[in-house]
Amino acid sequence: MKSAEQTIAEAVAALDWSREPQGLYAPIGYTLSSGGKRIRPVLALLAARMFGGQDSDVLPAALALEVFHNFTLLHDDLMDRSDMRRGRPTVHVRWGANTAVLSGDQMLIEAYSLLARVPADRLPQVLRWFNEMATQICEGQQYDVDFEQRDDVDIRDYIHMIRLKTSVLLANALRTGAYIAGADEQHYNTLYHIGINLGLAFQLRDDLLDVYGDPATFGKPIGGDICCNKKTYLLIDACNHAQGETAEELRRWLRADTFRREDKIAAVTDIYNRLDVRAHVETDIEAYTQQALGQFDTLPDCPEREQLRQLADQLLNRTV
Amino acid sequence: MKSAEQTIAEAVAALDWSREPQGLYAPIGYTLSSGGKRIRPVLALLAARMFGGQDSDVLPAALALEVFHNFTLLHDDLMDRSDMRRGRPTVHVRWGANTAVLSGDQMLIEAYSLLARVPADRLPQVLRWFNEMATQICEGQQYDVDFEQRDDVDIRDYIHMIRLKTSVLLANALRTGAYIAGADEQHYNTLYHIGINLGLAFQLRDDLLDVYGDPATFGKPIGGDICCNKKTYLLIDACNHAQGETAEELRRWLRADTFRREDKIAAVTDIYNRLDVRAHVETDIEAYTQQALGQFDTLPDCPEREQLRQLADQLLNRTV
Repeated sequence: MKSAEQTIAEAVAALDWSREPQGLYAPIGYTLSSGGKRIRPVLALLAARMFGGQDSDVLPAALALEVFHNFTLLHDDLMDRSDMRRGRPTVHVRWGANTAVLSGDQMLIEAYSLLARVPADRLPQVLRWFNEMATQICEGQQYDVDFEQRDDVDIRDYIHMIRLKTSVLLANALRTGAYIAGADEQHYNTLYHIGINLGLAFQLRDDLLDVYGDPATFGKPIGGDICCNKKTYLLIDACNHAQGETAEELRRWLRADTFRREDKIAAVTDIYNRLDVRAHVETDIEAYTQQALGQFDTLPDCPEREQLRQLADQLLNRTV
Repeated sequence: MKSAEQTIAEAVAALDWSREPQGLYAPIGYTLSSGGKRIRPVLALLAARMFGGQDSDVLPAALALEVFHNFTLLHDDLMDRSDMRRGRPTVHVRWGANTAVLSGDQMLIEAYSLLARVPADRLPQVLRWFNEMATQICEGQQYDVDFEQRDDVDIRDYIHMIRLKTSVLLANALRTGAYIAGADEQHYNTLYHIGINLGLAFQLRDDLLDVYGDPATFGKPIGGDICCNKKTYLLIDACNHAQGETAEELRRWLRADTFRREDKIAAVTDIYNRLDVRAHVETDIEAYTQQALGQFDTLPDCPEREQLRQLADQLLNRTV
């Protein structure tokens, strides 16, 4: 059997965006051709294979999740004014803000058009889950925006936000794949919880790598979150633990209007080091990772389970 | 039985937008509370009643169409930089562009969440039609944008564009209502075609009223389309028929960078008058109106049919 990665890559490549009007569809083709790891549809496909599902039954939902994910990136880049994504100019830079709005809207509709091809007896539940997931992701995005204006965000708020913004998509990909393949409720719920914990560990690791990652492999410049005061796990944890002089120093950097990028990154990293922030986040990453990986044992013992476990492991072991 | 208008008004008012995060949901509640005639859900409900459908079976789809329509207005106002809608500031003016993007996205997801409540045996077809309609509306919007940059738009292109942008939503509202109520294919297809013709007549009438409407009842300032060179039926028809001096005069006005608003409106209206543009558009409006109203006779003879016919008639007989 073809690998899940290969099957998904071919299915994404087979989507046709050459139709008119090209002003609407070319930016969609551009967005989807920029690669990425296609983690979400691969998770859905492997989860389906684990329960003996046919690829053709699960592919529409798997592709819907990938198109949806790329839609969120397109609109997020517009709202964040991000100029580059995966080494290329973003849609609003290349075609303008209005195109980013309208082609993004059409991508969301395309995700639902793919979803409508799910076998009819599975469709109502898959559609309800998809809607719930999409709603949670928009809510997560809104909380992320709200947090920028709030001084009282604690770790629990933050975990709630990244659960919405990152985890539910991975979780729903796993659950939907298993459900379409006819898995028991107990199994597809287990996969959902694996996805939630995987997403939390993954996002916290991303926060960690922004400060402590290897510039050669991280893919983004180190310190981006520090420069823009992004309320990550690390910053919230530092604010919680900083006292006296250190708290004052941290506040000064957060309020600073003009600074040399490397000075702020070095100073805030030094504060994090003094407060043991790295150890705190690594403890939580390890806990979520163990929760995710441990739950695999309750799933049916089969090659796809091990492939999924390996994929989860890879996701979580990016070089620090 | 409660009137369709009253039933829809109550159902829209019963949608709850008080949940958190309010940064996401308050703009949705604001958009949906600004009124409007709720034509689309009323059409869906009346079409369902015509075939003995239960209100509760069709209301989810009827509301989905209303929420979707308001989503398109929200994002269109953002893309057009329109400051006011139904006498109130638009969402991007009141909350900013990013809120308009994200709350608009969530409205589209809410439309699908309502749609997911359609009876399961009707859902696959209703979802496919909804996706097709939503795609056509985005394509229509893109063509509308493209036309601004093109000099070779003819009446056929224009009719194709407004069919996508305006007609298919009315048509799909009628078809979906009838289908959920269990109507025959022949009947729901007839309703679809009524909706298409109704939409075309309605949009051409809107083009006409922009120039020849009564300022007291039109709801927008007269001449808005003329001022911004909007490629309406009237302008395209004028470009097609203008020759010699008149063609040169029209071109000058289209190219003019600075002008007094009332001068341009008066001059272009005068050109339209000389070229008999009003008669041309009225002939086409009458043809589409007759096509729409005539098809009612092939539908089952019942009170709802007459209500629908009356509603169509009202829509098309706004005072010139």
